Amino acid sequence: MARHMALASVALVGALLAAPALGTEAKRRWTLDDQLTAPEVRALAISADGKSAAYVVRVADRESDRTVAILRRVDLASGTTSELLRARWIDQLSRVPDTSDWSARIDKGDGVQLYRIGSTGAVSPLVLHPATAIFGDREGAVFPGYGHAPLSTGVRAHSWSPDGRRLFYVTVDAEPKGKAVRYDDDVTAERARRRSPGQATASIYLREPDGRDILLGKRPQSDLTTFFDRNHIRWQKNEVQYDVMEVGADGQQEVVTMAWVFADRKARLLDPKVERVYWLLPGPDGGRLSSQGNGDERELVETLPGGKVRSYGRFPFAVGDGRAVGGFRSLDGKRAIAGTRTIDNPRFGLAVVGNGKVRTIGGEHSLNICDFVPSLDRGACIVQGQTTPPAVVTVDVASGEIWRVAPVSQAHEAIDPLNIEPRTWVNRHGYKATGYIVWPRGYEKGKRYPAILVTHGTDADDRFANRENQWEYPVQLFAERGYVVLLVNDPSSRQNAEIRAAYDAWIDETKDLAPERLQQLIWLNGVASYEDAVKELVDAGVIDPARVGIAGYSRGSQMVNVTMTNSHMFRAASSGDGGYLEPAFYADVSGSYDAVFGGPPTDPAALAHYRRLSPSLRAGEVCGAILQQVAAPYIPSIDFYTALRKAGVPAQLSLYPGEDASSDETHIFHIPSNRVGAMQENIAWFDYWLLGKRDPGSPFADRYPLWDKMGAAAPRCDGPGGEPGG
Amino acid sequence: MARHMALASVALVGALLAAPALGTEAKRRWTLDDQLTAPEVRALAISADGKSAAYVVRVADRESDRTVAILRRVDLASGTTSELLRARWIDQLSRVPDTSDWSARIDKGDGVQLYRIGSTGAVSPLVLHPATAIFGDREGAVFPGYGHAPLSTGVRAHSWSPDGRRLFYVTVDAEPKGKAVRYDDDVTAERARRRSPGQATASIYLREPDGRDILLGKRPQSDLTTFFDRNHIRWQKNEVQYDVMEVGADGQQEVVTMAWVFADRKARLLDPKVERVYWLLPGPDGGRLSSQGNGDERELVETLPGGKVRSYGRFPFAVGDGRAVGGFRSLDGKRAIAGTRTIDNPRFGLAVVGNGKVRTIGGEHSLNICDFVPSLDRGACIVQGQTTPPAVVTVDVASGEIWRVAPVSQAHEAIDPLNIEPRTWVNRHGYKATGYIVWPRGYEKGKRYPAILVTHGTDADDRFANRENQWEYPVQLFAERGYVVLLVNDPSSRQNAEIRAAYDAWIDETKDLAPERLQQLIWLNGVASYEDAVKELVDAGVIDPARVGIAGYSRGSQMVNVTMTNSHMFRAASSGDGGYLEPAFYADVSGSYDAVFGGPPTDPAALAHYRRLSPSLRAGEVCGAILQQVAAPYIPSIDFYTALRKAGVPAQLSLYPGEDASSDETHIFHIPSNRVGAMQENIAWFDYWLLGKRDPGSPFADRYPLWDKMGAAAPRCDGPGGEPGG
Repeated sequence: MARHMALASVALVGALLAAPALGTEAKRRWTLDDQLTAPEVRALAISADGKSAAYVVRVADRESDRTVAILRRVDLASGTTSELLRARWIDQLSRVPDTSDWSARIDKGDGVQLYRIGSTGAVSPLVLHPATAIFGDREGAVFPGYGHAPLSTGVRAHSWSPDGRRLFYVTVDAEPKGKAVRYDDDVTAERARRRSPGQATASIYLREPDGRDILLGKRPQSDLTTFFDRNHIRWQKNEVQYDVMEVGADGQQEVVTMAWVFADRKARLLDPKVERVYWLLPGPDGGRLSSQGNGDERELVETLPGGKVRSYGRFPFAVGDGRAVGGFRSLDGKRAIAGTRTIDNPRFGLAVVGNGKVRTIGGEHSLNICDFVPSLDRGACIVQGQTTPPAVVTVDVASGEIWRVAPVSQAHEAIDPLNIEPRTWVNRHGYKATGYIVWPRGYEKGKRYPAILVTHGTDADDRFANRENQWEYPVQLFAERGYVVLLVNDPSSRQNAEIRAAYDAWIDETKDLAPERLQQLIWLNGVASYEDAVKELVDAGVIDPARVGIAGYSRGSQMVNVTMTNSHMFRAASSGDGGYLEPAFYADVSGSYDAVFGGPPTDPAALAHYRRLSPSLRAGEVCGAILQQVAAPYIPSIDFYTALRKAGVPAQLSLYPGEDASSDETHIFHIPSNRVGAMQENIAWFDYWLLGKRDPGSPFADRYPLWDKMGAAAPRCDGPGGEPGG
Repeated sequence: MARHMALASVALVGALLAAPALGTEAKRRWTLDDQLTAPEVRALAISADGKSAAYVVRVADRESDRTVAILRRVDLASGTTSELLRARWIDQLSRVPDTSDWSARIDKGDGVQLYRIGSTGAVSPLVLHPATAIFGDREGAVFPGYGHAPLSTGVRAHSWSPDGRRLFYVTVDAEPKGKAVRYDDDVTAERARRRSPGQATASIYLREPDGRDILLGKRPQSDLTTFFDRNHIRWQKNEVQYDVMEVGADGQQEVVTMAWVFADRKARLLDPKVERVYWLLPGPDGGRLSSQGNGDERELVETLPGGKVRSYGRFPFAVGDGRAVGGFRSLDGKRAIAGTRTIDNPRFGLAVVGNGKVRTIGGEHSLNICDFVPSLDRGACIVQGQTTPPAVVTVDVASGEIWRVAPVSQAHEAIDPLNIEPRTWVNRHGYKATGYIVWPRGYEKGKRYPAILVTHGTDADDRFANRENQWEYPVQLFAERGYVVLLVNDPSSRQNAEIRAAYDAWIDETKDLAPERLQQLIWLNGVASYEDAVKELVDAGVIDPARVGIAGYSRGSQMVNVTMTNSHMFRAASSGDGGYLEPAFYADVSGSYDAVFGGPPTDPAALAHYRRLSPSLRAGEVCGAILQQVAAPYIPSIDFYTALRKAGVPAQLSLYPGEDASSDETHIFHIPSNRVGAMQENIAWFDYWLLGKRDPGSPFADRYPLWDKMGAAAPRCDGPGGEPGG
């Protein structure tokens, strides 16, 4: 099974992985089940001796209708892969130093607890704590979820000292639902929340070499660093450092670094002016690595304690992207490794920094999830690409050699890869946007094809059927069904100072830019990119301009809604679980809206800016059918639907249910039956509105009569560029 | 215990009841517990022989922290009262014809079911149905609640044929929470709902004389007549008639009357053009009684089948008020009884219509809940008044004599009545508003008192400590504590054609009146009434103008919020569970807001009208401290709070919790500990902001430092009539 070969050049890795499998079996096409079960590798850890690795993959399980987590062990020499464990949830996978065991948070049915897993798969508890606090989209949960079932949680985080003798861990305790009246900000916080929140406290513990547990501190729920960021634990020789968030009397939040000194059994507060108190992307000189500047190259710099900056030169990649591999630093401090993302044709790799020099590892495909032995000499990673299913590889850091060890999903290896072509488009305003053309299977030159454009921020990069990008839009199936699919990113926010200033104003919630300018640079600029990307393929005779659709969720949903209310190029749209830009949302994101619109919608001056951009206020401009698929009945989506129908626009608002009456589907769907349904609905929607096709076997076939009726009564549109008429 | 005396004149009843008890015990003052346990009689039924009656009273039970229902039997000759049953819920009390038993829906812990109750209190099941559907403010409930704990419900309604041989009843079944996607209107319906709704079906049954149950029909949840109005069942000789709501293909709802013919065992649809198909307020001639016209007198008319109208003359009362006794008609059709409400000094009584004449029963106090023997010769009622605790009386219909039989609450009989004076105020625009002055205990002329005005639509009438009017504002305790309390109704909507047209436009959601005029007549007119009522007592030397507060919930909350943003007379306000008029609420009540504001707040022309009336858009005008007590974190209340704080106005938003994370407190609070808390909070709030008083023993004492801070930082106000300054 494992195909071993040393690759002299990183460029060859991609060539190898994209090549047909060595076996002789005939390759097959994508199926709906392939879309559903595309594996998501979420964690990987290498053993200290570099001989084995363990990884966690999340996969939809149709039978239980759950997304399950599978823990596998891979022998890095032979590629032999064995399943150690299958559970509702597994994360925070870590090697237990100086052993061949692993540790992880696992939900075996009694909540998320901390376990030790032997190399043969034997599981024994490390910390079991009553799992009273829920993380997820359930009534009474302490924090909302994002893409998983509600998790009853006993243990929130853990970290081993490098010698394995000490264990830092955090437990959480929900406060019982009380009879207390809640006041003011505790109430206003619920405005934006679908579910009534619970309250919890976190307890930070250190397990000492003799097995004793010392309580380092109790933390309130306002400490997001503990509840979300897992304290950024850094082990030092004599102490363990960890971050917590304090809320000052003025309500300002501040992250501070604490240290627990082993000998004294005392805590101390680090002074950020004299001690290194950050954790991310350490450089070899003990500073913090970052990429500076705008444009096609970025300067890699190390900011040292005290503020001095050292430059390593300019590179066509950036470090610090949240989707890239995090940072590692060897114990001797001579070498650092940081994850990279290339700027053109976005792809993930590694930058090895040492001796004042920078070397890259990776090339034709993405290295996304990596772990290294303590010396940073060897590592294991997940390699993947748009047409390359994820696989485990080993990395020799000194030589840059990458060895393919074992695939993650045999099923996906058996698919005949589609032709997916990376592109950079330049729009009418001169702005670049990266992305891909996914060519329909068996594309014939000279024939015009229907097309669907899929967008989600900057997530169109070199990963395999990545759900963060394509959500429940079955991109590969669309290509199998004869659609040209365009995966188009937002124009890069760092391509020049002007657009960067716009993003800065938006993110920092300033009023540095006039709303008109901000709206133009961030939203209408994107619409221009989409239109121009489509137009190029229309002009090239590839796309039929009368059969073009658009889809996107979240940030993509904003863009879909803005595009449909500002462009007449798209006959059908699918907009997923979004609603930002709707006036009704003002109070929940007032700072952000103040930047975008200049104030609340009840301010007559600002209202003009809402009327320029808020989709529901421009429903009369729409020239196509709009489907919204949502995980909860959020007000902005409802308002947009209502406005569309009032304007006579064919529209559908589809709410995918949670597991029970007290919980919701999550922003990234986690219930397999919902995922299958949403993909089938998208197929039915685009086939109907773009191709006029009906599938009597579709689970959405009962909607056709209503679609017929809405279509017949819709305002007349005169094709691309035409004006919607009455 | 029972004090029997025939009263020759109805006027004497009041005189008697207001007189001190015949016993010699010293009367006492109102306590918080008296406020909490003021009895609410919810149902009363008289036996066919007129010898006994049963009634249901709901009372807060501090120990279980539940509002419990108590079923009592009263011997109408002796007044002997016995408790038959105490349960979580009892309603739809009815006599079982031709027996001395009663029937009622009762929740004994396994959901609301139908039981028969013997005269000694023995309870036996009539219909037990799995209680899967929930009515209440709980996740997955089929309909929201209003003032009760979530009720798991098996039986929705029941009615006996006059001979007691047949039983009409309705059961409900919740649909199991499914995995189905929900679409469009099913989703938009949740915009205004705090809790995700469930779905249910209703089954209408007839139990035949031989005990067999026949299913007459299954009804969907869209049939509000079945789910809410209990089908308006009318028994005829050969059939039972009942209403259901049908939804046509065009989405229009229509109530139709069905009949089940006993002999054929078949259903038929009644033709409203030729058969009487209504149920409410039957007149002696088979028509429908109603009160017509505007002003201080109304014409009592009977509209006959076919449309002919018969007039009975003009009277200083109206029939058809939902708070009054319903309609009765004798079997021989010679006599009808309709509940009345007087126009000035609103009080409930009875109109006996027969032989073309109208006679009234009642006078000095209200007769609220009545039942009659089939001949309508005798009846039993609940009598009550502002200072008169509810008691059971018998009514001789021919003579009009009323006999007091038994009190409902001995505890409240023992309270020394306050001096509560009915008033009609005429404001600067010439509009009348009715209400009461509740004088402080031991009022001394010449001394100025602090004052609190309490308002809730037209609910300030002659009932005892009525929670629908005074909510958790402990009016009687305020008077005990030295406040003058004004209970002030809205100006009557029928005092002239102009205001009636405004109310019609509002209720019918037309644009017949310009928003400015509607806002003036319905809201600002009320503000003028409040100001002028206070001013009169200020001018009379009774009220200290620097210490005046205002309180109201629901409709009263609208008025409090509008008053505080348009008047500088009130230094403190308590606004309960409201938010109508806030822009964020537009989509949920668009027709109503279109009438009030001329369109959505995103229409620049309409926005001007929002800025004139929406409280959160006028927060800068406020000159006092505003407390909002809410049963759920509804957006409008949150928006008002946020706007107030942004404007520097002292404000507090207090959310009273439900029984658990999946349910909420109800609009009319039903959890005794919340009720006690809310009353104590109101006392603390007004004592602090009006009197500068602190009670270290108050459960809200920990809020004083925050109130101090908000008060110190508040915009300066220059007293009554002064402008809020910076």
